[in-house]
Amino acid sequence: MFENKNTTPLSQLGEFGLIDHLTKSFPLVQPSTLQGVGDDAAVMNFTEGHTVVTTDLMIEGIHFNLSYVPLKHLGYKSVMVNLSDVYAMNAYPTQITVSIAVSNRFPLEALEELYAGIKLACKNYKVDLVGGDTSSSSSGLIISVTAMGQVENEKITYRSGAQPNDLLVVSGDLGGAYMGLQVLEREKEVFKVNPNNQPDLALYSYCIERQLKPEARKDIVELLEELAIVPNAMIDISDGLSSEILHLCKASEVGCDLYEEKLPCDPSTSSTAEEFKMNSITALLNGGEDYELLMAIKTEDYDKIKGHPLLTTIGHFTDQKEACNMITGLGQSIPIEAQGWKNFNKDESA
Amino acid sequence: MFENKNTTPLSQLGEFGLIDHLTKSFPLVQPSTLQGVGDDAAVMNFTEGHTVVTTDLMIEGIHFNLSYVPLKHLGYKSVMVNLSDVYAMNAYPTQITVSIAVSNRFPLEALEELYAGIKLACKNYKVDLVGGDTSSSSSGLIISVTAMGQVENEKITYRSGAQPNDLLVVSGDLGGAYMGLQVLEREKEVFKVNPNNQPDLALYSYCIERQLKPEARKDIVELLEELAIVPNAMIDISDGLSSEILHLCKASEVGCDLYEEKLPCDPSTSSTAEEFKMNSITALLNGGEDYELLMAIKTEDYDKIKGHPLLTTIGHFTDQKEACNMITGLGQSIPIEAQGWKNFNKDESA
Repeated sequence: MFENKNTTPLSQLGEFGLIDHLTKSFPLVQPSTLQGVGDDAAVMNFTEGHTVVTTDLMIEGIHFNLSYVPLKHLGYKSVMVNLSDVYAMNAYPTQITVSIAVSNRFPLEALEELYAGIKLACKNYKVDLVGGDTSSSSSGLIISVTAMGQVENEKITYRSGAQPNDLLVVSGDLGGAYMGLQVLEREKEVFKVNPNNQPDLALYSYCIERQLKPEARKDIVELLEELAIVPNAMIDISDGLSSEILHLCKASEVGCDLYEEKLPCDPSTSSTAEEFKMNSITALLNGGEDYELLMAIKTEDYDKIKGHPLLTTIGHFTDQKEACNMITGLGQSIPIEAQGWKNFNKDESA
Repeated sequence: MFENKNTTPLSQLGEFGLIDHLTKSFPLVQPSTLQGVGDDAAVMNFTEGHTVVTTDLMIEGIHFNLSYVPLKHLGYKSVMVNLSDVYAMNAYPTQITVSIAVSNRFPLEALEELYAGIKLACKNYKVDLVGGDTSSSSSGLIISVTAMGQVENEKITYRSGAQPNDLLVVSGDLGGAYMGLQVLEREKEVFKVNPNNQPDLALYSYCIERQLKPEARKDIVELLEELAIVPNAMIDISDGLSSEILHLCKASEVGCDLYEEKLPCDPSTSSTAEEFKMNSITALLNGGEDYELLMAIKTEDYDKIKGHPLLTTIGHFTDQKEACNMITGLGQSIPIEAQGWKNFNKDESA
């Protein structure tokens, strides 16, 4: 992707030169950050509330395919994935560290693109990049991000606090990122056959953006604060709604009834599913990477969220421990099953 | 390495099953840990002092070679590398997160070995494993560790605090890990030619242990506390003494004179260097991975450390900004040069 440009090989910079170069223009804006990149460790002053920490690995060929993922978007998304976990604790992210391993096939300009996306994410979410590591890799690109955040002690939301009769509420809409991935995979195959094909992807722009440039739901955590709501439990939807519902129910030792007809779906998600001859309920239930927040809201808070455009009540929790069912449009009750994460079943060459 | 045993493929467990399985027996011992593995993020309560955070990536084929590194040792070392950075801030480590990516060629039993080493490190250093991520990898093994720690505000040691006339002091001895690597690399080549050769490595046990199972210098941070010494600056030696001296001098805007004859060297390091027809000063100055601590000590603290078996005064800082010299046994002054980290110069197949 950078073959024809006047590029700079990484060997021109050492490890320290590379880190300095990539991170020098990152400002520090969080009052809790005392020392960012440049020492043996970053230093923070967390003296109030609780500190949360979460980490995610993204591997080329497993989590992303550089034939259709622009590096700037990838950098942005690698931060979002982690911030989403921080927001799922009802916390606000404050610092991140970013480690990357790259092979020599990446010129400096490729890493600059990646870091431009990371920088934009830091700016939009007021998060400081405070550390990291760079390494060479014998194969592809590897990105490891760790995010820290802070939350007032009484506002933290674990997975384990859902109570029977709590409402099951989700932010935004579901399935878009999954359908975006299907479109991108299809275009990749078309490109192999006809590299001169100029696809018109405008029809799919919503789904593609959900896949390539997801946003962590900072706005939802802010909204909950405004509405004076502390959910009894919360989780982010990274692996798919079914999987996350099962996590919440297992950790909270409750069951739940989910209503198929209530599931929020953007019209372009359902039309894309239709084009792919796919039941959109599959994308809604099992499509991952939406990074929406799924929460257990007390019934007395219902009036505060009723009809809110960003929140949808999709079911309720029950005292039937770990009995999780979806009620279909025809009134049938179907057990919700985990699709989970199947990468270990893939062939190594995948 | 696990081919002939009755092994369990990773595909038998999903992502969640794998994390649960690998981390279920890890106890939480730090009072600041409120929630470990099992939610969207770990939760800590850091109510006093400063919090430090550091992260390192270790990549198969770049940082380690599984043909001679046992997985348990690798797990242990991956934690040590990070704890060493925490100690270099004069802080005590409290929590770690560990993310791994592995290909299908690793059976579950291999990961259990890796985590046995991580668990031993956590036990020996009283650190809690609070989070992480597991992923498949299209090629080798990747380990990303992030460590957090705490330090009283007035005891933190940055790289930037060294003053002219401060003593340059190093813990332990140098060059051993590097010579251990040379021995292991040689044995790998011998093994290729004659797989039935049973090498007697007893002669090299010190150096090999320094390479395969380094210890972070918790004891030195405890010693400094006992002696009521707060170094003006401190750094850990991961890339080699020369490189770390230059970092300290650059960050502190000072120079230094280093005395060749003072460099601490174990007899087995020098004898191994001799056998390899290598000047041992090369190993002492540029050999990485010793994980010793290098510090700037005020002259008034000299009497407290004089003759201490764990600490050696190897030079002093000067007001000659960034002029770093080694004074040889013959009294010559030679500029210290960074060897740095050259992995990006290696061929991709390295």
